[in-house]
Amino acid sequence: MEVEKESCEKVNRFYLWLSCFITIMNKLHTMVIMLFKKVKKIGEDDPRRILHSFKVGLTLTLVCIFYYVTPLFDGFGSSAMWAVLTVAVVMEFTVGGTLCKGVNRTFATLLAGALGLGTHHIAILCGEKGEPILIGIFVFFFSSAATFSRFIPEVKKRYDYGVTIFILTFSLVAVSSYRVEDIIEFSHQRLSTIALGVALCISISIFIFPVWAGGDLHHLTSTNLDKLANFLHGMRDKYFGEDLVDRSYFQSYKSVLNSKATEEVLVNLAKWEPGHSGFGFWHPWKQYLVIGASIRHCACLMDSLATFITTLDKSAPLIGSNPRPKPDSEELYGKIRSACADMSSETAKALSDLANDIKARSAPATARLHVAAAEEAAERMKMALSNGAEGGIVHVATIGSLVGEITKSAKEIVGSVEELAQLAGFKSHEAVNRTMVKPLADGESQHTTITVNE
Amino acid sequence: MEVEKESCEKVNRFYLWLSCFITIMNKLHTMVIMLFKKVKKIGEDDPRRILHSFKVGLTLTLVCIFYYVTPLFDGFGSSAMWAVLTVAVVMEFTVGGTLCKGVNRTFATLLAGALGLGTHHIAILCGEKGEPILIGIFVFFFSSAATFSRFIPEVKKRYDYGVTIFILTFSLVAVSSYRVEDIIEFSHQRLSTIALGVALCISISIFIFPVWAGGDLHHLTSTNLDKLANFLHGMRDKYFGEDLVDRSYFQSYKSVLNSKATEEVLVNLAKWEPGHSGFGFWHPWKQYLVIGASIRHCACLMDSLATFITTLDKSAPLIGSNPRPKPDSEELYGKIRSACADMSSETAKALSDLANDIKARSAPATARLHVAAAEEAAERMKMALSNGAEGGIVHVATIGSLVGEITKSAKEIVGSVEELAQLAGFKSHEAVNRTMVKPLADGESQHTTITVNE
Repeated sequence: MEVEKESCEKVNRFYLWLSCFITIMNKLHTMVIMLFKKVKKIGEDDPRRILHSFKVGLTLTLVCIFYYVTPLFDGFGSSAMWAVLTVAVVMEFTVGGTLCKGVNRTFATLLAGALGLGTHHIAILCGEKGEPILIGIFVFFFSSAATFSRFIPEVKKRYDYGVTIFILTFSLVAVSSYRVEDIIEFSHQRLSTIALGVALCISISIFIFPVWAGGDLHHLTSTNLDKLANFLHGMRDKYFGEDLVDRSYFQSYKSVLNSKATEEVLVNLAKWEPGHSGFGFWHPWKQYLVIGASIRHCACLMDSLATFITTLDKSAPLIGSNPRPKPDSEELYGKIRSACADMSSETAKALSDLANDIKARSAPATARLHVAAAEEAAERMKMALSNGAEGGIVHVATIGSLVGEITKSAKEIVGSVEELAQLAGFKSHEAVNRTMVKPLADGESQHTTITVNE
Repeated sequence: MEVEKESCEKVNRFYLWLSCFITIMNKLHTMVIMLFKKVKKIGEDDPRRILHSFKVGLTLTLVCIFYYVTPLFDGFGSSAMWAVLTVAVVMEFTVGGTLCKGVNRTFATLLAGALGLGTHHIAILCGEKGEPILIGIFVFFFSSAATFSRFIPEVKKRYDYGVTIFILTFSLVAVSSYRVEDIIEFSHQRLSTIALGVALCISISIFIFPVWAGGDLHHLTSTNLDKLANFLHGMRDKYFGEDLVDRSYFQSYKSVLNSKATEEVLVNLAKWEPGHSGFGFWHPWKQYLVIGASIRHCACLMDSLATFITTLDKSAPLIGSNPRPKPDSEELYGKIRSACADMSSETAKALSDLANDIKARSAPATARLHVAAAEEAAERMKMALSNGAEGGIVHVATIGSLVGEITKSAKEIVGSVEELAQLAGFKSHEAVNRTMVKPLADGESQHTTITVNE
């Protein structure tokens, strides 16, 4: 009996362990599959990423030849290590990125090396004891100044990496000079291996499946225009076409809103790139930032429109659906609606024409015509409204609607801050608040309190 | 005569050179003063930048002691160089940045060192000739895979620097093993000097005037809320207070629109930071992104409102100014206006209360009351409008106004793309365009052509 119970327990325990093990293995299996899918998607989204990975592998393997081929290794000594280091750090996804880092690294090393040697020669004059002290002072002064220069926006944008390398090399050369006998040889070897690594990176970057930041920027701008056009096409076909359920196009402009950071990075990298595939070295990359700002402004307006429509869904009769407006304003209503549809459609055409023009790199011609047609429609709407005698009220009411939307979004902010307060365990000043709440002007504090407790 | 002429010419040339020299010196002088002012402003804007620069200088000077103090130098050999290198690269402005880079560097070096040694031991088995080939294959494989992993968003966010260091160290150790005799000693020395450099950086970062990314993020969120509140306060005091000239508050929300990139960087760094000044290690940093998204949505609505008001200035009677609406709608007009003023004022109070709550880290209490009061006002406006019988029309007209604004912003985009086309010398397809232009539906092509030529 006792033995049977014990073996039963053993079996149970075994099954428990087994089920645990199976659960863990299943979870691991799911995770591996998820990771695999993610990696596959990343590769499929932009196959240039896979090529870039192989390019880095290839460059590193090539640079390793330095170590293998003995005559070359003997020429450079242990400095050959710097070539490996350079390749690992300098190779970037875009040609602009590689050029920026490579040029920065080479020139910063040159400058810092020269300054370091100068420091060494001045320090020698101070004798055995003075030398380390003077070098220390120089290192402190130069590295502090260089670090501060990184806060200057112009330096930060184009030479940030160079300044880091400057600090690094200067300290290294100035300090090594105290120990290394043949400091000139040391500096020269370092510089040549770095220059060699940079040259290799830049060549591979440019000549084997190059990825141009400029091209990406150009493409991004045209894609963003297409996204805006999609929203307006959706408005025309669905919303004003009385299909009020499908709102998938409401998402299309969202990614445009936060495109500024990507654009700025690409512009900074594109400026480093030589002329390529039709873009000259002096291509006006900065203008893309101007276009980008206008595009984001437009996306902001679309966001407001989408928010307003979503609010209407919940609180008021839908445009184009029942309940219809009163019969006496039916005609006015129809006029405004048709004008809106025309505006959306013509503006959408203008934007997608622009996107195509940018893609084809041709001067825009048709876009202005479509915008003019959209303006015609806007004028028509204004006329209809002022004939309808509601002109003045409509302007105030539009402002009112927007302020109302702002109020609603403020409520959202309150909600998310409250969630933060709860998650982070912010203290609640019950007592403090009671003295802080000012009585409401219209004496509706009762109603308000109920809202709080909702 | 000849001599006089010659000397006169000489004097003239001298004056020409002198004026040239003075112009250049003046320009240089202006540039130096400009630079000095800029540097002063950068320092004044955030004095922690100056402190950070001195901290970097101090850390580098400290690490140089390794080179000076002979017993320490003898212990580490030329590997002491890696400590200098580490400090120059790892020291960042925020504690989170330094921790992120330091931890990444240490663990990536450890992992890559171990893998490199493993590779070395496997490669030895293949004999003299096979060794370099096998090492080459390993380097190619690991560096390609590691480079690809940088495209996975989660890796990119937190471990990007670590992957770079992994590639660098792995290549270096695997390849050096072919040459350096005592590879274990070499790896060990490298790892200890790097760890030492990292420890020094982290200590100085944390204990001498620390700059916390988390604190900056917290501060940024509350400042952004204040900016939104300022806009609404401006609306209340100026626009609805009939001061229609001062529009300075129209700028206050602009910087909020593009705050996403900064916020994301700060969140990623804040996650690395230990508990500090009231923020625990598990502080819900992610929630700040949620709040940030709501804040940006609100700023977007403000942008639309500001755009609409600017348009009204140019094209239609100003709200609150002459010409007033027709006498029969005067009362309705006044009601809407007062409701708008109340909404602005209450929402502004809610937002600035939230900003204060975040600053004080107390749970928001009064904000909900103010939002409720603003909602009351919105309800009042809705009632007034529906009593005024224009309800239906107003909704359509608001949508119309927004679509009209989108049209206008599209015109802006067309303008900036045209400028790009001109600057970049895009080809104009006169012929192609002629076939592409579709005839306008309402037969107003004559008028439209005139608009183009404006």
